[in-house]
Amino acid sequence: MEFSSKLLENAVYEISQLPGIGKRTALRLVLHLLKQPKTQTEHLVNALGTLRQNIKFCKTCHSISDIDICDICNNPSRNRAIVCVVEDIRDVMAIESTGQYRGLYHVLGGKISPMDGIGPQELTINSLIQKVESGEIQELIFALSATMEGDTTNFYIYKQLEGFDITTSTIARGIGVNDELEYADEVTLGRSIRNRIPFEKALRNS
Amino acid sequence: MEFSSKLLENAVYEISQLPGIGKRTALRLVLHLLKQPKTQTEHLVNALGTLRQNIKFCKTCHSISDIDICDICNNPSRNRAIVCVVEDIRDVMAIESTGQYRGLYHVLGGKISPMDGIGPQELTINSLIQKVESGEIQELIFALSATMEGDTTNFYIYKQLEGFDITTSTIARGIGVNDELEYADEVTLGRSIRNRIPFEKALRNS
Repeated sequence: MEFSSKLLENAVYEISQLPGIGKRTALRLVLHLLKQPKTQTEHLVNALGTLRQNIKFCKTCHSISDIDICDICNNPSRNRAIVCVVEDIRDVMAIESTGQYRGLYHVLGGKISPMDGIGPQELTINSLIQKVESGEIQELIFALSATMEGDTTNFYIYKQLEGFDITTSTIARGIGVNDELEYADEVTLGRSIRNRIPFEKALRNS
Repeated sequence: MEFSSKLLENAVYEISQLPGIGKRTALRLVLHLLKQPKTQTEHLVNALGTLRQNIKFCKTCHSISDIDICDICNNPSRNRAIVCVVEDIRDVMAIESTGQYRGLYHVLGGKISPMDGIGPQELTINSLIQKVESGEIQELIFALSATMEGDTTNFYIYKQLEGFDITTSTIARGIGVNDELEYADEVTLGRSIRNRIPFEKALRNS
């Protein structure tokens, strides 16, 4: 792509650094901004700049929060004995939107992934272990994605916690409600058969 | 979507104002930026802010340019008698990349579209008429998209130029080179038959 303007080229380059956005899309986005009032670009630029400068993480669960202790950790009606271990704030938002969970969260900030140079030290695993050591937690729920990195991370944490008197569980994997068996992938289907649950229990929880 | 951070919500909102980017994608992009070094966000914010503040348009062809008269308009080896009328800078870049065109351009900045509140006054049509009046132009090539808005704009300009001694043409529409007839839409195929060209001419231009 040959640009007649360095300013334009530079803006397109920076936008195309974002994941999933190529040069063509970046150019389309930049030209869109140029057609809108200046204030729209100013608001965008301010919102991103302010976020990156002032971003804070909850001191307890490490989720993104504007205050030191986030609203979930601060909520006295939450069950402090159950902690759900997730990768990032999107998972917290997804689980919260179900309205089915009244425990706390622990946001790891990623998964162990040697390929990407992410080891246990890059994540908030030590902080999790300290929480367990303090004795307040009775159950840890692993809710990381079921990839090799997710399984590795689960297993690493599980090993670190040997000897502590806590229950660990992972969220159920299986065929989605309303999904048809014939379209399910074999791994999921196989796992959902091995991890079958008593019918009476399923009835109670449906 | 429920956010635990106003700063995060604000950044996601502003990014989701861009065309084709929903709230979920916006959140993914923002979380990506938060994982990268601060400098990446700073560069992005600077590039967009500087572009929007200092954007300039070539005084002759109205394409985006960092200088008063763009490199194409300034190039003495370009044929000043032929002007290709396009919608925006992306079209200039696309035609330039073919290496087949040695005339100048005129960037309208859009198409006439009453539905979007874009009339002839919002575009650079007056400036085009003035160029024609000055007598330097012998041929205008319309290269707007073949939509209703594009056709309307072509026709509007064509009507304004009645009485001037210039040739007007439009780029050929037809089946793409290497495209199969059976997959072409009927409108394009029909037009390519009505606008068929002498075989000897096609041979010369292939």
